[in-house]
Amino acid sequence: MFFKRIETKGLAHYSYVLADGNQGIVIDPRRDVDVYLDLAKENSFQIKYVLETHRNEDYVVGSTKIASLTSAEIYHADRELDYKYGNELKEGKRYKFGGYEIKAINTPGHTPDSFSFVLYNKEDEPWMVFTGDVLFAGDVGRVDFLGEDMIEEMAGRLYDSIYGKILPLGDEVLLWPAHGTGSACGSKIADRKWTTIGLEKKLNHQLNYERRDSFIKEVAEMRDKPNYFKKMEKINLEDNSQKDIPFIEPLTPPEFEEISQKDDTVILDTRKETAFAAAHIGDSLFIWEDRLAKFAGWFLPLDKKILLVSDNNYPQSELETLYRMGFDNLGGYLKGDLLSWHMTGRKSEAVNMVNVTTACSIIDKRDVAYLLDVRKEKELEKGGKILGADNIPLQQLPDNTVDIPEDKEIYIFCSSGVRSMIAASLLRKKGYHKLNVILGGIQNWNSKSCPLEK
Amino acid sequence: MFFKRIETKGLAHYSYVLADGNQGIVIDPRRDVDVYLDLAKENSFQIKYVLETHRNEDYVVGSTKIASLTSAEIYHADRELDYKYGNELKEGKRYKFGGYEIKAINTPGHTPDSFSFVLYNKEDEPWMVFTGDVLFAGDVGRVDFLGEDMIEEMAGRLYDSIYGKILPLGDEVLLWPAHGTGSACGSKIADRKWTTIGLEKKLNHQLNYERRDSFIKEVAEMRDKPNYFKKMEKINLEDNSQKDIPFIEPLTPPEFEEISQKDDTVILDTRKETAFAAAHIGDSLFIWEDRLAKFAGWFLPLDKKILLVSDNNYPQSELETLYRMGFDNLGGYLKGDLLSWHMTGRKSEAVNMVNVTTACSIIDKRDVAYLLDVRKEKELEKGGKILGADNIPLQQLPDNTVDIPEDKEIYIFCSSGVRSMIAASLLRKKGYHKLNVILGGIQNWNSKSCPLEK
Amino acid sequence: MFFKRIETKGLAHYSYVLADGNQGIVIDPRRDVDVYLDLAKENSFQIKYVLETHRNEDYVVGSTKIASLTSAEIYHADRELDYKYGNELKEGKRYKFGGYEIKAINTPGHTPDSFSFVLYNKEDEPWMVFTGDVLFAGDVGRVDFLGEDMIEEMAGRLYDSIYGKILPLGDEVLLWPAHGTGSACGSKIADRKWTTIGLEKKLNHQLNYERRDSFIKEVAEMRDKPNYFKKMEKINLEDNSQKDIPFIEPLTPPEFEEISQKDDTVILDTRKETAFAAAHIGDSLFIWEDRLAKFAGWFLPLDKKILLVSDNNYPQSELETLYRMGFDNLGGYLKGDLLSWHMTGRKSEAVNMVNVTTACSIIDKRDVAYLLDVRKEKELEKGGKILGADNIPLQQLPDNTVDIPEDKEIYIFCSSGVRSMIAASLLRKKGYHKLNVILGGIQNWNSKSCPLEK
Amino acid sequence: MFFKRIETKGLAHYSYVLADGNQGIVIDPRRDVDVYLDLAKENSFQIKYVLETHRNEDYVVGSTKIASLTSAEIYHADRELDYKYGNELKEGKRYKFGGYEIKAINTPGHTPDSFSFVLYNKEDEPWMVFTGDVLFAGDVGRVDFLGEDMIEEMAGRLYDSIYGKILPLGDEVLLWPAHGTGSACGSKIADRKWTTIGLEKKLNHQLNYERRDSFIKEVAEMRDKPNYFKKMEKINLEDNSQKDIPFIEPLTPPEFEEISQKDDTVILDTRKETAFAAAHIGDSLFIWEDRLAKFAGWFLPLDKKILLVSDNNYPQSELETLYRMGFDNLGGYLKGDLLSWHMTGRKSEAVNMVNVTTACSIIDKRDVAYLLDVRKEKELEKGGKILGADNIPLQQLPDNTVDIPEDKEIYIFCSSGVRSMIAASLLRKKGYHKLNVILGGIQNWNSKSCPLEK
Repeated sequence: MFFKRIETKGLAHYSYVLADGNQGIVIDPRRDVDVYLDLAKENSFQIKYVLETHRNEDYVVGSTKIASLTSAEIYHADRELDYKYGNELKEGKRYKFGGYEIKAINTPGHTPDSFSFVLYNKEDEPWMVFTGDVLFAGDVGRVDFLGEDMIEEMAGRLYDSIYGKILPLGDEVLLWPAHGTGSACGSKIADRKWTTIGLEKKLNHQLNYERRDSFIKEVAEMRDKPNYFKKMEKINLEDNSQKDIPFIEPLTPPEFEEISQKDDTVILDTRKETAFAAAHIGDSLFIWEDRLAKFAGWFLPLDKKILLVSDNNYPQSELETLYRMGFDNLGGYLKGDLLSWHMTGRKSEAVNMVNVTTACSIIDKRDVAYLLDVRKEKELEKGGKILGADNIPLQQLPDNTVDIPEDKEIYIFCSSGVRSMIAASLLRKKGYHKLNVILGGIQNWNSKSCPLEK
Repeated sequence: MFFKRIETKGLAHYSYVLADGNQGIVIDPRRDVDVYLDLAKENSFQIKYVLETHRNEDYVVGSTKIASLTSAEIYHADRELDYKYGNELKEGKRYKFGGYEIKAINTPGHTPDSFSFVLYNKEDEPWMVFTGDVLFAGDVGRVDFLGEDMIEEMAGRLYDSIYGKILPLGDEVLLWPAHGTGSACGSKIADRKWTTIGLEKKLNHQLNYERRDSFIKEVAEMRDKPNYFKKMEKINLEDNSQKDIPFIEPLTPPEFEEISQKDDTVILDTRKETAFAAAHIGDSLFIWEDRLAKFAGWFLPLDKKILLVSDNNYPQSELETLYRMGFDNLGGYLKGDLLSWHMTGRKSEAVNMVNVTTACSIIDKRDVAYLLDVRKEKELEKGGKILGADNIPLQQLPDNTVDIPEDKEIYIFCSSGVRSMIAASLLRKKGYHKLNVILGGIQNWNSKSCPLEK
Repeated sequence: MFFKRIETKGLAHYSYVLADGNQGIVIDPRRDVDVYLDLAKENSFQIKYVLETHRNEDYVVGSTKIASLTSAEIYHADRELDYKYGNELKEGKRYKFGGYEIKAINTPGHTPDSFSFVLYNKEDEPWMVFTGDVLFAGDVGRVDFLGEDMIEEMAGRLYDSIYGKILPLGDEVLLWPAHGTGSACGSKIADRKWTTIGLEKKLNHQLNYERRDSFIKEVAEMRDKPNYFKKMEKINLEDNSQKDIPFIEPLTPPEFEEISQKDDTVILDTRKETAFAAAHIGDSLFIWEDRLAKFAGWFLPLDKKILLVSDNNYPQSELETLYRMGFDNLGGYLKGDLLSWHMTGRKSEAVNMVNVTTACSIIDKRDVAYLLDVRKEKELEKGGKILGADNIPLQQLPDNTVDIPEDKEIYIFCSSGVRSMIAASLLRKKGYHKLNVILGGIQNWNSKSCPLEK
Repeated sequence: MFFKRIETKGLAHYSYVLADGNQGIVIDPRRDVDVYLDLAKENSFQIKYVLETHRNEDYVVGSTKIASLTSAEIYHADRELDYKYGNELKEGKRYKFGGYEIKAINTPGHTPDSFSFVLYNKEDEPWMVFTGDVLFAGDVGRVDFLGEDMIEEMAGRLYDSIYGKILPLGDEVLLWPAHGTGSACGSKIADRKWTTIGLEKKLNHQLNYERRDSFIKEVAEMRDKPNYFKKMEKINLEDNSQKDIPFIEPLTPPEFEEISQKDDTVILDTRKETAFAAAHIGDSLFIWEDRLAKFAGWFLPLDKKILLVSDNNYPQSELETLYRMGFDNLGGYLKGDLLSWHMTGRKSEAVNMVNVTTACSIIDKRDVAYLLDVRKEKELEKGGKILGADNIPLQQLPDNTVDIPEDKEIYIFCSSGVRSMIAASLLRKKGYHKLNVILGGIQNWNSKSCPLEK
């Protein structure tokens, strides 16, 4: 049997491909589907079925794209949702490929429609289970998508799915979820890409609760939700087979400037935080390429044309990430980096980067300095709180700048310096100019023994 | 300046990419255009113009595909033809990209609409000329497309174009034609991929004629024309941007057999001639992968669904060749080669391969043996004629089997054994069964001193 | 944590790479080590340790090669063996990389020195176990390497290792052996590349024995052992870091012929069985590229210079396989396949391929026809025995041709046709000429209901 | 005939591969020779000859490496030099490969031993000429290597070689030199990668001199010579086949810091100038990856262990460049960039980057500001001289810092900002700290109409 996990970096998304003889199955394909077709070519199989564990929120699913290019049939849970494609999964139905079978089992909780898929070997024993967003390594699916009112009910259904259907498959069964660590779909996901039901029973702290009510109490929690989730929920009911990853064109500095000055564009700068700090085009949104999947959904507008400034010769990796997240409105990229921008006599802006020793020395000068900490609350508990700093988590920054003074030097820090630089770019777009990012963030702070709150 | 020739094996087709700053030009793109977009990505340029030297006959042009993915403008000569896309080339007009310019010069002869393109360097001196099918290394364009009536007029116009417009550009100018050796567009094309006007004046025997009338006499010759040329001429007036290279599916022997038994299919076997000889599925058309571009246009029907038997794990290279030639009707490929076919208890057929010594010994037994030579007439003149053999050039074989006896052993040879095997597969499809291919063809014959006609 | 299995096709060998932070471990590396260095580059880690589960018999291990290029330390069990490199593994010792540890546990049985490696996660629970040749998916290690005298003792030690040390790690622990299905190191290995201790307890029939003596009875079996095992056992005690995969040169037919006629060469033809059947150079050994790792150790001499005839443009995949198996004596390859051979007037030989219907019709004609079945005994039990056929398993054929008649037509079959063709090439080298291979082998036979013995 | 130019970016070096039948030739191979072997594999040829146009000064030649892996014979001009390998080229001797021949012609001038190679086609007409460092597109070879005393004689010999032997080959002959624009071997080399003798006669301003004495007067000029040229001249007489491109290991910040504090190391930072400006490890030498081949020979010590800070995940491209230039002493690279450096509480330094408007405003404040222009003299003539700036060309900076004040703010500029940043890193290593680089350099200056000297 052929089996392969396809990992999509950034989104921390896992899709799966299984095949036997000349028949294969793809579970939860991402939007750019060449990777699945290439496997089918190399290993000589047809894609017989595309199975979706649930209607996804965090990326555009590639099912219809695959179906448009092959003879594959799509199956998903379609209960009340108004799907424009595919067929309905049925509880207990088996999907045969070559000499193997996959059984669909309904495991609601994360969403009402979630399914898991159990692979049976030729002796008809459960071998692997694909749990989608229901059960991860080290975490369980979030249950807050139907809102505060439904959260406890969903947590209860999740308990029933996990304890009633998945765990009983056996300790020895391999477990393959839809996400790994770093995903927006689970904050506690462990760095354990290869796991089994037995390992999760031992190591997943969310499974420490024997009683249903304790489990509910633990997991029924409202979480952050990026803006674009709404769009994904809509788009994933539709046929998305038409668009490919766009080819975009390099722009000379004058061309770039001309287009960027139109109202409907946003400049996205994906270079490293140091490069952005040294020089960037005014009014750019900074999100480092490596964090694009994590933060684009929060800060990148869906209705504006995106202009890219990238460290890459051609911003292919940015285009892939944006495509997977449904940002299809690209307008070009700056040819030759900031170097060409400067060489044609254009101005840039900078963000000051300061070492911790400098930062420490200004803590007491509260009349001229304002300290902004953009970490999450839970990080503060773990990592320590800096004396006198205001805490506004990055995700909430755009709507909470009222109390940030415009006349003081603003010192921003997080755990490394990357989120701080995003914050700096957001604040600059709001008109702030005295911006400083603290190098290395809180880690650095601690290591220099600058004072922390007790 | 960026410059690159894109060579398409099989078709022996050359397209060209030029770029400077962030602007580029593509001349005569093939249908699968990723190669051009990839160059644009790597070298950071927009494709500003797509230029066509003429309406092509031997492959599907990729102009509309490029235009659908970029902001490129297409230019071609459109005089009387009913183009559904693009703009008209104008004599002497210059197309600027970065700091360079390309000038279009009308050079009719091969077709009435043929253009050549002259690249000027920054000192405004001619640097390179792109001659399409007008002037090749070692050959000139064929002039028979408008028929016997027009052939002398076209040859005259070709003389005027070459002697009046191209050669005067200067001996030092680099010359880049649209085809290399092996193309159906020029039978005398030399193995001289890098050439100049001066080298052609010295080495190209078609340019030995000072007098217009001698030149006309030499080149005004009707030549073979594969069936699919007609389709290409039509398709290249249309927007061909919709279809991509198809993804096709592996078929198990029973699936393959079932589909192949339907009336509307043809089995195309692209394995090496030895493998085909040893065992092939009955009624297959043999064209070795390496010769597919050369012979598919002659023997592969345009209106049937093609089923592939290939030596490749996935027949990507065959699909590319067929796509470039407009064969879009693919039905799948046999998974696991003839091995799987046999292992599921299916029958195959064979063609006998004989050494020359054996073949020599049967020359006199004309009562039981029939010798068939499928080489072209000109090859006979050069390579020698075998005593007692009938000559039917391969391209004419399908329509000329009347005199081939069904009751005798048929011994087929060419210059190597490849065309003979194509002939054997064609004859088998016509009902012949006593088929033998002579190993190594005429070369082998000579080397064994079997008797040749004087 | 980074983790990756490296699968070496042909040998069905698995090596493993683990890394965390900037430190990594490689377990049982193959000889061509670029794959490990490339992973180290991509994922930014040093190779801190190379661990060997035991002294390997079926391939050249790449430990010293890695150590010569990096700062890696090698560990192996070296008890009585005279290793020229590396350090000694200690029972229970832990090897730290980044935040993780691997514990070495001595698990003799397959060899006296076999070790397994247990990966502990950060909570210090067993997560994965690397069992080398001790425990496979569906099989256990062979115990016959010390000879008949020691076989029961070794089987007992294997029982103690598996039941006493490996299985108790827990059902949920992932199990990664050194070989997959197709390896010479385990005949019953299952097609189950992802497995756990719990799955093996359920599905591995060799683990059905609760009692030590029953287990011993089952597994204490002498098995086939290719010639080159002896050389591997010696070579794997030495420093093998000097040689790289050789670059070999294309030979024209005259050059090839000249070299091949010297005494110390062997022609190895790796094309498909159909191509070999149709035409091959006299006195060639046929082993299809896909089966090279399986049969080269049996039939390819270690002391002759190897000349290749391949379907590949350059025989890179053959060179890799031969390199991994310690065949370093290469002499070049034929440029242009048999086509060039024939075109220069050279002779070839053929093996007749016959359909089953033909074969059936000659079963009774024992005066002119001899039926040779080259399958293994166990296959005969499973697949059925053909009436009147002699059985000489392929591996034993070279030493058992005495009773094969030279004057009769020899009809050879196996389960597909591939081993039959190897047999045909072996017989031809012994002087037999009336050779016929039955297409599709026994499968085909059955499907045509030719008579089988009862 | 197969023909391919291999372009080595950075060095702007061209080597050439020609092949016919199964025989090929490589001219002036670079040190990492896989590219040539891969071509030999793809196109099925032996490398019969390696030809060197002269003993190279600017890179390590790969001849002995090729010879150690193949059966190739090396030819070079060895007159008085003490070569440890290879055979002597002879004036007029022809080197045959397949159906073609290359003739060696002695063309001294750049060095006393320089040869050019003329490719003859099958009609025995000159087709291409490979001119090494004798004649480039737009330039001729430098003649200053034997020192001031010999410069006029060498210029005269160059005249004789070019006018007496190369130009007479014919306008139509293709010309392939050993370097392109950007090379240290020719400052006027034109952006004309495809050229002919006729084009050079028209466009190469160095060929405007009919009289020998005028030519000598023009080209007899002493030029800059990087330190490592001396080492290359020595190394290129030896057998360099032993070393491969090294594999180097990622270092954590503490590991990196520990090693870098030892006396014998140098930190080489190859990130973009903006990233370096924002934060770098103290005492680093900055040379942007894209300019490494251009400046490493000037500023990188040959006797220290090199530690890399790179924007690349693994600094493969830096390693290749350094390997080609003979820098074999690598000590590792920083894992995780400056981000990891900062996150472990380590300090960094910065260089201030200023916009031109700011820079202009300080021109008059000569008491606190010092303007340093690191462009070459000829650039000043062309681009204009800034009022009040001191000019110290970058290459001469390390030995000319006496007059640079330590107490003033130093404003450095060049034509873009890249060389200025190299200068800043050199000055910092000398103890200067008030460093500012002007964004976009002189281009920017002009465009802002800051005052230039008249």
